[in-house]
Amino acid sequence: MVTLDGLTDNTPAEVPMTVSPPDRPGRHNLDPHVTRYAARTAGMTASEIRALFAVASRPEVVSLAGGMPNLAALPLDSLSTQIADLIAEDGLVALQYGSAHGIPLLREQICEIMALEGISAHPDDVVVTVGSQMGLDMVTRLFCDPGDVVLAEGPSYVGALGSFAAYQAQVIHVAMDDEGLQPEALREALAQVAKAGKRVKFLYTIPNFHNPAGVTLAASRRPEILEICRSHGVLVVEDNPYGLLGFEGQTYPALRSTDPDNVVYLGSFSKTFASGLRVGWVLAPHAVREKLVLAAESATLCPPTLNQLIVSRYLSTHDWKGQIKTFRENYRERRDAITSALEQYMPAGCSWTNPDGGFYVWVTVPEGVDTKAMLPRAVTARVAYASGTGFYADGFGSRQMRLSYCYPTPERIKEGVRRLAAVLEAEMDLVRTFGNVSMRPISGPETPSPDTA
Amino acid sequence: MVTLDGLTDNTPAEVPMTVSPPDRPGRHNLDPHVTRYAARTAGMTASEIRALFAVASRPEVVSLAGGMPNLAALPLDSLSTQIADLIAEDGLVALQYGSAHGIPLLREQICEIMALEGISAHPDDVVVTVGSQMGLDMVTRLFCDPGDVVLAEGPSYVGALGSFAAYQAQVIHVAMDDEGLQPEALREALAQVAKAGKRVKFLYTIPNFHNPAGVTLAASRRPEILEICRSHGVLVVEDNPYGLLGFEGQTYPALRSTDPDNVVYLGSFSKTFASGLRVGWVLAPHAVREKLVLAAESATLCPPTLNQLIVSRYLSTHDWKGQIKTFRENYRERRDAITSALEQYMPAGCSWTNPDGGFYVWVTVPEGVDTKAMLPRAVTARVAYASGTGFYADGFGSRQMRLSYCYPTPERIKEGVRRLAAVLEAEMDLVRTFGNVSMRPISGPETPSPDTA
Repeated sequence: MVTLDGLTDNTPAEVPMTVSPPDRPGRHNLDPHVTRYAARTAGMTASEIRALFAVASRPEVVSLAGGMPNLAALPLDSLSTQIADLIAEDGLVALQYGSAHGIPLLREQICEIMALEGISAHPDDVVVTVGSQMGLDMVTRLFCDPGDVVLAEGPSYVGALGSFAAYQAQVIHVAMDDEGLQPEALREALAQVAKAGKRVKFLYTIPNFHNPAGVTLAASRRPEILEICRSHGVLVVEDNPYGLLGFEGQTYPALRSTDPDNVVYLGSFSKTFASGLRVGWVLAPHAVREKLVLAAESATLCPPTLNQLIVSRYLSTHDWKGQIKTFRENYRERRDAITSALEQYMPAGCSWTNPDGGFYVWVTVPEGVDTKAMLPRAVTARVAYASGTGFYADGFGSRQMRLSYCYPTPERIKEGVRRLAAVLEAEMDLVRTFGNVSMRPISGPETPSPDTA
Repeated sequence: MVTLDGLTDNTPAEVPMTVSPPDRPGRHNLDPHVTRYAARTAGMTASEIRALFAVASRPEVVSLAGGMPNLAALPLDSLSTQIADLIAEDGLVALQYGSAHGIPLLREQICEIMALEGISAHPDDVVVTVGSQMGLDMVTRLFCDPGDVVLAEGPSYVGALGSFAAYQAQVIHVAMDDEGLQPEALREALAQVAKAGKRVKFLYTIPNFHNPAGVTLAASRRPEILEICRSHGVLVVEDNPYGLLGFEGQTYPALRSTDPDNVVYLGSFSKTFASGLRVGWVLAPHAVREKLVLAAESATLCPPTLNQLIVSRYLSTHDWKGQIKTFRENYRERRDAITSALEQYMPAGCSWTNPDGGFYVWVTVPEGVDTKAMLPRAVTARVAYASGTGFYADGFGSRQMRLSYCYPTPERIKEGVRRLAAVLEAEMDLVRTFGNVSMRPISGPETPSPDTA
């Protein structure tokens, strides 16, 4: 079994806060409003690599950094016609306020989609959100007081870490291996938090084709994870944007499918249809769902009506399953390109995961190489990636990086990996000659952006 | 000068919390997750009149309750064509993630719109949000720790009260009269809060065509309000969704126009174009804007790209100023209908504001009548309104109601007021015979919904 390097030792003995340190002492803050912000705002720090993305987005740079879905296969002409009809026929509804709960027909259709992964749900218990990012933010809003603990895989989705930080929740990472979250590590984390006298509010988990780790929670582990959470009185928040993107068309039973009362499920159309519409959803136990609607009203009043009607009409009139199959095939071709390029080019001492779905490969580099420090050199060499530290709330991840194969062509992916390997070789040479090339300070989570999401 | 009844005595001596009381003791809570929620979640209570809206939305009921813009004048055919072209020509951008900051061209166009009210701004300092409700939520997220005080007009926008409650901010209302917020009342409120050892984070104000009060802050008062806030170190949050809907085409200088460093400005396309697109914006001082983008990323990742492009194209290709003029004329016709119906039908002892723009009339009824208790009887008589208590965080407003004239036809408005007057007459008869008809408990703010927004 391949172990994701370092993931077994990252449940810290002391419970660190996810909030970033404030401005360094001695540094003058030019913001006249600095004394007015809420305590939570101190944790909102921009990704240090954000500035690099302006460079990384130049056409000559192969970006393996972003998580943007590849939409090229979308049937734009037919979508154009459908949306035109929608506005002409139903524009006064499409352009008007709706309810915070979401359009009933769309919520029914969402239940049909979730049935593909074994979920039996009532449309009343679905809340449509502005992308599943909003669902995540709303769930955190409902459950987390400052200092409450959230358990999350290590590494975890950068956007989730951003929401947890915004509510001053404290993230404890739980180790994964190539079969996903380790039940024993979950038990240990729960024991440690209990010992520290803290309260765990939920386990946040991405069971399928994990972002950024690229692994999937083994079906055999799922009942055990659910049982551990249930017996410890811990809610499960299951985030599943990639579940239908298994390269062999395989699906896994959703955690929600066997434990409807203790799982809040997050879904999204961003990876199976169109991210720019920002349509996602939360399926929650009934009482939680009622509170979610209230929270969503105070956050955005209602999700955009037009966007919901577009998704609903698309699901009614297009072969959406066929479209997902096309997406899947495109991504499989790119996964094949990246794994064969990694095999071909990467220096000895590197390892990586082998995703069977989704968008990401998680790479571990040899001791001494710091992926965050190396990034500017990589961008100079015309390749970009997301360094591992953004996916941890505790400063871990400097020997890791996430490579996204979802967007570039297979040829560009191959060229990108070739460039990355050369940068890495040079870095490893430096390490062999001079020791560690940087002393990176521990830092908090970076704020998500579509570039790293 | 007409005084909004009761508005001079609603700055309470003791500082009340905006958070609603939890379930009444002795009442069994059926939610198994009840012990897991964050403290803030206790403040999320559904509007007691929500259940009534199912009845109120029946066609035989004249609803003067909702704040839905009347979109009938929108050019649906041409919008349909434009949006179809947008998808066909630029679909891969429109359907893809964008930045949390918003599309640059749209931010430039927003600056041109704000210039109509005297604002000179750089597009970099504009952040596009999912409606201005999200802007409000983000501003509160940035500035308010639990227990921080927000000053707001009494009454104030129900959706703002919902966001303030979600962040456990404490709302202190400041009295208005028919020239808007009273400077002297603002000074008194500031002194009171200082005396209580609390911190005021910002003044939330709707200077133009106030929701729900229907009044406008006199131009002569604006410099004074700004000066009071500035000298007390209090930020101003200026919410201006209705500013371009003055019935004579008049506009007022935005507070932001003369104090760019101390005002955060919220704008919206919901009332001047299409509410269902959920496109609003925040204009903020530079340092605040940077934090807003980070907060927005953790909330929704990015606003819907398609919706931003639709608004941008609409502004580029349509006579949007002509369209606003059309909207304005429709609303003026309806304002005329409601004010003449109020004159004609309302019993003696009632008073109301005379809006010269926007959507709302604020009515005060005689002592003894409780508008919340009366609402079911009004709905039975086939007319709905929003009772005043939803617009206060402190339980005030039981002698007030908001009538929205934006949506129904003038004939329906007249009939609705006729029915309302009859219900009110009957209620006043009861009061004369039996004294107060209800003992309404003090309650916290209701959660907004598009019905009451």
